[in-house]
Amino acid sequence: MTEGAISPVDTTFVFFAMAMVQLMTPGLALFYGGLMRESSVITIMMQNFVTMGIVTVLWFLFLYSMCFADTWVVVANPFTHACLRGVSMYAPNGIATTIPALLFAGYQGMFAVITPALMTGCFADRFLFGPYLLFITVWMMLVYAPFCHWVWGGGWLAQWGVVDFAGGIVVHITAGFSALASLLMVGRRHVPDGMAKEDLDVPHNIPMVATGTAMLWFGWFGFNGGSGLAASGLAVGAGVNTEIAGSSACLVWMVLDWKLNKKPTLVGKCVGAIAGLATITPCAGFVQPWAAFIIGVIASLACYACCEFRRKFEIDDALDVWGVHGMGGFIGTILLGALADHPDCLNADPETNTVCINPGTVVRSWSQLGKQTTAAFFCAAYSFAVTIQRARDASS
Amino acid sequence: MTEGAISPVDTTFVFFAMAMVQLMTPGLALFYGGLMRESSVITIMMQNFVTMGIVTVLWFLFLYSMCFADTWVVVANPFTHACLRGVSMYAPNGIATTIPALLFAGYQGMFAVITPALMTGCFADRFLFGPYLLFITVWMMLVYAPFCHWVWGGGWLAQWGVVDFAGGIVVHITAGFSALASLLMVGRRHVPDGMAKEDLDVPHNIPMVATGTAMLWFGWFGFNGGSGLAASGLAVGAGVNTEIAGSSACLVWMVLDWKLNKKPTLVGKCVGAIAGLATITPCAGFVQPWAAFIIGVIASLACYACCEFRRKFEIDDALDVWGVHGMGGFIGTILLGALADHPDCLNADPETNTVCINPGTVVRSWSQLGKQTTAAFFCAAYSFAVTIQRARDASS
Amino acid sequence: MTEGAISPVDTTFVFFAMAMVQLMTPGLALFYGGLMRESSVITIMMQNFVTMGIVTVLWFLFLYSMCFADTWVVVANPFTHACLRGVSMYAPNGIATTIPALLFAGYQGMFAVITPALMTGCFADRFLFGPYLLFITVWMMLVYAPFCHWVWGGGWLAQWGVVDFAGGIVVHITAGFSALASLLMVGRRHVPDGMAKEDLDVPHNIPMVATGTAMLWFGWFGFNGGSGLAASGLAVGAGVNTEIAGSSACLVWMVLDWKLNKKPTLVGKCVGAIAGLATITPCAGFVQPWAAFIIGVIASLACYACCEFRRKFEIDDALDVWGVHGMGGFIGTILLGALADHPDCLNADPETNTVCINPGTVVRSWSQLGKQTTAAFFCAAYSFAVTIQRARDASS
Repeated sequence: MTEGAISPVDTTFVFFAMAMVQLMTPGLALFYGGLMRESSVITIMMQNFVTMGIVTVLWFLFLYSMCFADTWVVVANPFTHACLRGVSMYAPNGIATTIPALLFAGYQGMFAVITPALMTGCFADRFLFGPYLLFITVWMMLVYAPFCHWVWGGGWLAQWGVVDFAGGIVVHITAGFSALASLLMVGRRHVPDGMAKEDLDVPHNIPMVATGTAMLWFGWFGFNGGSGLAASGLAVGAGVNTEIAGSSACLVWMVLDWKLNKKPTLVGKCVGAIAGLATITPCAGFVQPWAAFIIGVIASLACYACCEFRRKFEIDDALDVWGVHGMGGFIGTILLGALADHPDCLNADPETNTVCINPGTVVRSWSQLGKQTTAAFFCAAYSFAVTIQRARDASS
Repeated sequence: MTEGAISPVDTTFVFFAMAMVQLMTPGLALFYGGLMRESSVITIMMQNFVTMGIVTVLWFLFLYSMCFADTWVVVANPFTHACLRGVSMYAPNGIATTIPALLFAGYQGMFAVITPALMTGCFADRFLFGPYLLFITVWMMLVYAPFCHWVWGGGWLAQWGVVDFAGGIVVHITAGFSALASLLMVGRRHVPDGMAKEDLDVPHNIPMVATGTAMLWFGWFGFNGGSGLAASGLAVGAGVNTEIAGSSACLVWMVLDWKLNKKPTLVGKCVGAIAGLATITPCAGFVQPWAAFIIGVIASLACYACCEFRRKFEIDDALDVWGVHGMGGFIGTILLGALADHPDCLNADPETNTVCINPGTVVRSWSQLGKQTTAAFFCAAYSFAVTIQRARDASS
Repeated sequence: MTEGAISPVDTTFVFFAMAMVQLMTPGLALFYGGLMRESSVITIMMQNFVTMGIVTVLWFLFLYSMCFADTWVVVANPFTHACLRGVSMYAPNGIATTIPALLFAGYQGMFAVITPALMTGCFADRFLFGPYLLFITVWMMLVYAPFCHWVWGGGWLAQWGVVDFAGGIVVHITAGFSALASLLMVGRRHVPDGMAKEDLDVPHNIPMVATGTAMLWFGWFGFNGGSGLAASGLAVGAGVNTEIAGSSACLVWMVLDWKLNKKPTLVGKCVGAIAGLATITPCAGFVQPWAAFIIGVIASLACYACCEFRRKFEIDDALDVWGVHGMGGFIGTILLGALADHPDCLNADPETNTVCINPGTVVRSWSQLGKQTTAAFFCAAYSFAVTIQRARDASS
């Protein structure tokens, strides 16, 4: 391809989106850190921060190539673009045709970084650091890279018609259900003498939770908006949908807290917003704002129920990685099939369209709903099954 | 209008400006939270965060339509664009002609979110949460929406020639003077036994104040720069003016603290910067950098005096919402009439201009000064009068 | 030049880069503040924050003109563009030909602000505030302005062929070696009674360090990416190189901590990342991603050694301003000569190039290596010599 195909404005758009997604991993570290009791905060922040080091390096060395090079068995050839060889600063690749391939690689690298960090909320204080590094290295190769390739790299799920705008499957289901698996392996936390079991779950620093939420929410505009890979109405729709779903979920969670636990809480608002943001992620570029509003409401109702379920069955997922992220991504992936653009949008002319968010791509239909549901269940089962074996070795 | 009118680069500009303004509300939560004593920090942060939920939802449901649809009595028709119906992702509206209407709606929504949050600094620990939600809902309909429509939505103040670049009237005067009114209603804070009255006002976490200031200052580039709604010299001027006014005000406030209270403080620097940023807000896209410098200096002198006045008269506005935000917006709105572009700029050709920031729009004149002053007084009086009645019901 | 030369997309790119660099100074304040013991945190944050006030004001008044106006003895004429006179919002200057001159001035002003703030890590609790203000005023005129003009303003170092993409010389060497000099003048910290000497160096708030690192890392995309002054492949390369070098350095520092001190630390990860980011700064727009990876590795090895050296010789630079920032910039400036684009890139056609990051500018060569090394040593020596005299007056 020639340099002429590069759009400077799309490049600008994705560049800043990349930087904003970069900010989300430390945002997550603060979000999780504030929710933990004080003795675990450095541990969990360390496990978050190290993903910025190790996953970026793995991404550079071979993971990008595993995700986005030509297909080779289940994942792409890890050597084609090893060390980002042949990934041009001035020419596009076949996936993002108006931005430099290197920018696509850098932007996607940020998604790779935050995904394993999502899991740390589950097991942070029950994994030793060395085994943790090994665990995420293997996990990236066995879980993240295949799904990234299958959904975003032109693999079989993409070819079958499954879509995932910004990471409901690739990011949230993989991380959330792997977190659940790892939990079952590492076992319950030990309750120190003289501490009630409930005290394990008391957030030690709520303003830190709020600061982390702020950084996550801000970054999510880059996460969802940038996933259109262009400065277009699609990106605008994805961004505004993000805001609407995050807000409606935040509000509904607050009301649930109020009605069921007698008082609204700041932590609940933050967790609710994150649930809405995770749930809109796969849908952001395929639905209208009114659907984003509904998705936010459903996200809070469903994720809240999952968190209650988890508490009732005494699954020791204190930060609700499964209930909020895993189930958020799961529900969003399925809702997409039911709430995407109007069927007419399948034949809308992108040149003259002013109504559809993503004309000519995906519309709501029983067929799409079936594919999305299948993919969600498959990814959940795969992630759970593969991780439960790996986590055994890593647990302390 | 056709899709052809959309500029991808203006879209990019306003998109990221939107995300940056989104970050300001949690920034404000940290700024206010750090300034409070520890027992109130969660309360005030919660009241800030909930505006992201409730105001965005109201905005989606009908507030956007009240502000920017066709005129209907004092505000626009709340049903024309209810649920953002007819707000296109691909076509502009009549106000921002080069970006999608939905982006304009999303960007403006961020301004709607932060405005009631500004007031929380006044009464956070004296409002119950339920009445607070009702209060801001009604306040948005009775105060924010009318002024937003009158000034930015083509209403009568705009038609008369009043201008407000990024929210001196619509955001800061409405919030600041409503805060003052609410204060008079809710009464003074109760001083707990064993605590000196002065101890109520000791900031509990100064680094948190500084972090909040950082997020606010960063976001203000999107707030003021984005208000040009285009990637132009106007946006550049607005952004650089923002930096200059914030800095000069920060410096002058520090000197005042030093001379009058014997030592410069970090809190003073932060509050001074915010005063400068609030004051430049209405002017940012109408003045030259030298004027921004002067505006920053005047902002600090005037707001500092207002805060001293407030302290002397024992008005219990501990975080100086009125003195910093209200009076900052008030002074800036008026100064704009005196310090806008040179009169020659009225006839400058936008195509060849390299000197005027906003050629062909507003220049300094007695007439403009009169209109700005009238609007500032009217908005202050209106906001105060309407709020003083609503606050009675909401106070605990 | 005519307005026609302005590129709205380049303007957008640099505008947001400017805002992101603005966020770095408070980020640095949190990074340093968290590393200090609690009694010094407000002092150091105040010294950081005040640079946003005073340096911006000086920049507006005459420093910009000293750096970028026509040459006059060693620096440029401080009166040509005093108060940003003649710095157009709509026309470019001779250095950045596709963005408004005022945006270039605003963007460069952010670099001027953060540079003296870097030094505060060295002496914060040993400088009185008044002398500190005088010190940075004089330092900006005697150290920063000359190097900024010589390297970026078309001065003699630039003419000789020395390059510095985003501030290895102008920002990091000047600040790092001046910090070292100031340290030797102000002397060792007093150890309070009942406190072990080592306790002086225990970070009081590690999550604050991490938050600061997050803001710095995010902002660095604007710092390095924006330094291309255009929305191009160059900016993309610089941004991705920044991520890679920060990550590889973060990882290597962690491993060194692990092997040499028996455990990896969160502080070590943060400091390592900053070392990598500082070291890639001069190189970011001249090297390929594989070289960025190597630069990150070398950065950690070398800066770690410098910090150990500093500790062994009991130089009281607790926050390692010299070892991390000064030596990072120093090493990066030299490595650039050895690791820049392939020699063929000197003759590459920028129109058809898809391989070189910065075709037609700088390639690796003995000659370039010699010039870079000379410049690094010269800047280090100059900064040290000039500062050691100024610091005497400012120390308490």
